[in-house]
Amino acid sequence: MLFEITNLIAVSAAGAPADGTMQQSDDSGAPSFNPLVVLELISDTKEEAIAWLLSRIRTPQQAGGAGLLMEQLGPGVSAEHKDNPNLFLVGASWERLLSGAEDVGLFKEYSDGSMRGFTCTNKHNFKDFQGDGDGFLSMAECQYIIKHELETLRAKDETHVPGYSNAKLYPGKSINEIRHYYGEGQALYFGFLEYFTFALVPMALFGVPYYMFDWEDYDKYVAFAVFNVVWCTIILELWKRSSATLAYHWGTLSRKKAFEEPRPGFHGVLGYNPVTDREEPLYPNAKRQLRIYLVSLPFVLLCLYLSLYVMMIYFQMEGWALSVHDQDPSFWTGVLLYIPSIIYAVVIEAMNLVYRYAAEFLTEWENHRLESSYQNHLVLKVLVFNFFNCFASLFYIAFVMQDMVLLSQSLATLLITSQILNQFMEAFLPYWLQRRRNKKMIRKVQKKRTPGDKELPLAEQVRLEADMSTYLGTFDDYLELFLLFGYVSLFSCVYPLAAVLVVLNNVTEVYSDAFKMCHVFKRPFADPAANIGVWQLAFETMSVIAVVTNCALIGMSPQVKAYFPESETQLILWTVAIEHGLLAFKFILTFLIPDVPKHIQIKLARLEFESLEALKKKKMLEGTEFRKSVQ
Amino acid sequence: MLFEITNLIAVSAAGAPADGTMQQSDDSGAPSFNPLVVLELISDTKEEAIAWLLSRIRTPQQAGGAGLLMEQLGPGVSAEHKDNPNLFLVGASWERLLSGAEDVGLFKEYSDGSMRGFTCTNKHNFKDFQGDGDGFLSMAECQYIIKHELETLRAKDETHVPGYSNAKLYPGKSINEIRHYYGEGQALYFGFLEYFTFALVPMALFGVPYYMFDWEDYDKYVAFAVFNVVWCTIILELWKRSSATLAYHWGTLSRKKAFEEPRPGFHGVLGYNPVTDREEPLYPNAKRQLRIYLVSLPFVLLCLYLSLYVMMIYFQMEGWALSVHDQDPSFWTGVLLYIPSIIYAVVIEAMNLVYRYAAEFLTEWENHRLESSYQNHLVLKVLVFNFFNCFASLFYIAFVMQDMVLLSQSLATLLITSQILNQFMEAFLPYWLQRRRNKKMIRKVQKKRTPGDKELPLAEQVRLEADMSTYLGTFDDYLELFLLFGYVSLFSCVYPLAAVLVVLNNVTEVYSDAFKMCHVFKRPFADPAANIGVWQLAFETMSVIAVVTNCALIGMSPQVKAYFPESETQLILWTVAIEHGLLAFKFILTFLIPDVPKHIQIKLARLEFESLEALKKKKMLEGTEFRKSVQ
Repeated sequence: MLFEITNLIAVSAAGAPADGTMQQSDDSGAPSFNPLVVLELISDTKEEAIAWLLSRIRTPQQAGGAGLLMEQLGPGVSAEHKDNPNLFLVGASWERLLSGAEDVGLFKEYSDGSMRGFTCTNKHNFKDFQGDGDGFLSMAECQYIIKHELETLRAKDETHVPGYSNAKLYPGKSINEIRHYYGEGQALYFGFLEYFTFALVPMALFGVPYYMFDWEDYDKYVAFAVFNVVWCTIILELWKRSSATLAYHWGTLSRKKAFEEPRPGFHGVLGYNPVTDREEPLYPNAKRQLRIYLVSLPFVLLCLYLSLYVMMIYFQMEGWALSVHDQDPSFWTGVLLYIPSIIYAVVIEAMNLVYRYAAEFLTEWENHRLESSYQNHLVLKVLVFNFFNCFASLFYIAFVMQDMVLLSQSLATLLITSQILNQFMEAFLPYWLQRRRNKKMIRKVQKKRTPGDKELPLAEQVRLEADMSTYLGTFDDYLELFLLFGYVSLFSCVYPLAAVLVVLNNVTEVYSDAFKMCHVFKRPFADPAANIGVWQLAFETMSVIAVVTNCALIGMSPQVKAYFPESETQLILWTVAIEHGLLAFKFILTFLIPDVPKHIQIKLARLEFESLEALKKKKMLEGTEFRKSVQ
Repeated sequence: MLFEITNLIAVSAAGAPADGTMQQSDDSGAPSFNPLVVLELISDTKEEAIAWLLSRIRTPQQAGGAGLLMEQLGPGVSAEHKDNPNLFLVGASWERLLSGAEDVGLFKEYSDGSMRGFTCTNKHNFKDFQGDGDGFLSMAECQYIIKHELETLRAKDETHVPGYSNAKLYPGKSINEIRHYYGEGQALYFGFLEYFTFALVPMALFGVPYYMFDWEDYDKYVAFAVFNVVWCTIILELWKRSSATLAYHWGTLSRKKAFEEPRPGFHGVLGYNPVTDREEPLYPNAKRQLRIYLVSLPFVLLCLYLSLYVMMIYFQMEGWALSVHDQDPSFWTGVLLYIPSIIYAVVIEAMNLVYRYAAEFLTEWENHRLESSYQNHLVLKVLVFNFFNCFASLFYIAFVMQDMVLLSQSLATLLITSQILNQFMEAFLPYWLQRRRNKKMIRKVQKKRTPGDKELPLAEQVRLEADMSTYLGTFDDYLELFLLFGYVSLFSCVYPLAAVLVVLNNVTEVYSDAFKMCHVFKRPFADPAANIGVWQLAFETMSVIAVVTNCALIGMSPQVKAYFPESETQLILWTVAIEHGLLAFKFILTFLIPDVPKHIQIKLARLEFESLEALKKKKMLEGTEFRKSVQ
């Protein structure tokens, strides 16, 4: 390979308009166009390779190039010898962006309010296209288009594609603004977080009086368990509809999925792809299956066993603390009762973290060809272990020890400890590290510039952000919500304050996630998602488990047992029958509630009908012309 | 309305080639082209209306007509005054059929072995297109094209569209030949019947020695129940793959569904359709929901109650027969023991039949706009009742009475009686009625023609077949298979011969279905189906119920009970746990086994990739031309 792209970075907004308007060049190294993406090559790339790449990117599309604008980033005021000179700013003319929007198949609002695939010939009929079309494409879309064009160009240059950002994101911003800046994938995450938080409010409102008036009366949890069963079934169905509505208005619902190229890390013996006939690395599926079933699966099982072992140690500690407290019941031994749970919660978080890296390494090693397949295997591995690791002890306490007091206490400790740890690990710690680097850079710049000049010049800003950590997508954020959803839907009936805690956590989560994305990580590239993908399935599986668990808890409650004084068998049979009925009802509900709301369905059908009619008309016209030319 | 089409009939093969080659006209009224469809108008249609219709059908497409060939059917040799003169034969030129194939979006095998959408400009690259393309389109496809063209023409003429046939269909014919003559919907039914029969063979082989050596030992049914659980999970998953393979090679898998027009029976106040902006009848959804929930649902519940009532009478009869046999055990009282079951089986069949008509009437009255919605509601109504009606008594015997001897005896009687009744009702009775009509017609013709001329002239054949009953699609055939699948998967472990009986039934079913379609009903129009639709879901639901039922049967068996001598609670908990594990495994399996085999997936991906590439190339060419024209 001639050169290696080490970084592909989305430029932060910095108040500039997202089109190709000219900017004055100044000593900060700002180019003659509005930069959208920064391309970083390794510093020892040869001159001719750079020249070749530059010409390929600048050459107009019709001549086989990308037809983009590109300029080398100036050294800036704080230039040092060790700085990499091979940083390039990439932008595009307004017309180029529009034709790119057509290429990637962007959907935009039409003058009649429906969403349609954008075409350049028809551009003036789109709603927000005024005059020269200023503000028609969001910055996230512009960056997505440029990334797409660069990727099609460098089909064989394997690179990782990270991004960075320094925009200010705060909870007052609407989901639509998040989408304009970060794209649909991020916006859907924040949309789901918001939806989940609002969905928890009724449960929290239901839980507070429960907690206040029935605290020690575990018999009363039956009503709460029934509420949970209904709640977790309904909110997920309704979320599908909200998500479809959002995705429709963002134009990602009816957009066709782009053809999936092999993922960057994929390697193998060169051969011909049976689908595209292109020469590319091939890797036999049988080998991958062997790696999955002979290495990954045993590894996961071993980890599950380890997790079980740790759980047993926790129960021993718990028993020891209890015996100490029984021998000498004082304030300090009372505090001691909570210590094992807290230690266990910390160990769980640490194990999750270590396992997370191991799973990523293993899935990478399994060598999946497509990003979607990689993601599915990673999510499956991580979910199974996290579920087991977090909830095994609770299931054990609930159904083997049948100790509802310990269950409620253990749930509270786990939930609170993991929330505190998470907030610390995912936002404050990286922020603190980043801030140190930031200060160093500002000090360096201030040596050469007048003090009081608060905004960093472009060259310094780019260099600073190129060093930031890469945001690895919404994976960990969804995983956290998944575990919270588990705590709330599985066992909240024995600890009604769980929903309140999760609501509080979610509110701070919005802040810390936004903070993290703006200040800690590189700005991520937009991802035109139409739904939350595999996570919908994960949450639905959890809700099925929640129905089973809550039914079992109801069957075990003394209140229900009182109805079957003589026969335990009768009680179990009734519980199982009702549980089967509820599960059946849940599946029927999935069919009864349409995934896409009626008014969106009509709009989609209308679009389809019109494109069919247009096709017919076109054919008829072609027929007429053909006959004319024959005559 | 100017005229009313009373009949639209697919012409039977009669050995003629399915293209537009000329035929000599003779006194039998044969037209100058090969007729594909017969159109029947009511006999008092005005002359000018007929002339107008003829001109619309004959006018070339570019002038807004259908561009088809059409001729009035001659009176024939046996003409009588009361015969309807308004019978028209419709055909099309070869070119017209090809352009029609493009219009309806037919997929055909390409020269490289993949399946592609047919286009006239590209016709010579399709595999079976030799020279003038003789034999390229199957007769079923030609008829489907003409029906489609006639339907687009008469957008507002509401008619029912039946068909007829006198082709010879016998089991030696391959699924592909059935598809050529009857289209994909029929072929898939026969494909499924064949698959189901072969899938039953291992169960039958497993069942025979079981029946012979363990007959009176009901403890031993555990192994058979385990086998059933595995069997019903696997065969349905594998069928999806077979069905996808079949549909791919028939070109219906990747074919886009046509835009769905309102079904013929739909009525309402005239208004504007929000999707098409066309003026058409509108019917408020709220009204339909009211009809469904306030009339249909109570009716179904009432019928279920009635079915329960009949079941109770059956148990009383059973008890009475048993008491008679106990008082005086002779051969005749031994026979008497079987009488209640036989009567009950006959009553069940009668109730199913009556309910079937009631359900059709109710669903028609619910006034669904789309045929698919009508079908879903009809299938749901009929399935729920049939399932309850056929299996309620068996469930009662198995789980309330816990009498395995009675269960096996009852299952055998129900299965055998219903099979005999079905074969009689669906083939022999209609055949006998049809034969009488047939003989009458032949006698009439022979008065005027020389005897020994065995083939009927076209005019007589058309008139004869126009009077045949209409085949109502594969609905009743699938329903029968669904119930058989239920008998086999739910309770066959206590009566291992069930699979053998069903295999025998299926073999005769192939004959009787083929016989019925060829000799009893009008030839049905082709239906380009890609899968068995809602029936896949129905069979899968049945297999879930089968897992639950078999687990319960296993839990109840003395063999398993022996493992838990002291605690019934333990036994139930274990049974439930294993059942939950099996259900979870079933759902995981659904995700693990891809619905479309790998080699078909690659072919589909290749097609998609190529169309994307072609689009890109076309755009680039247009760009070049545009710049040239500007310069």
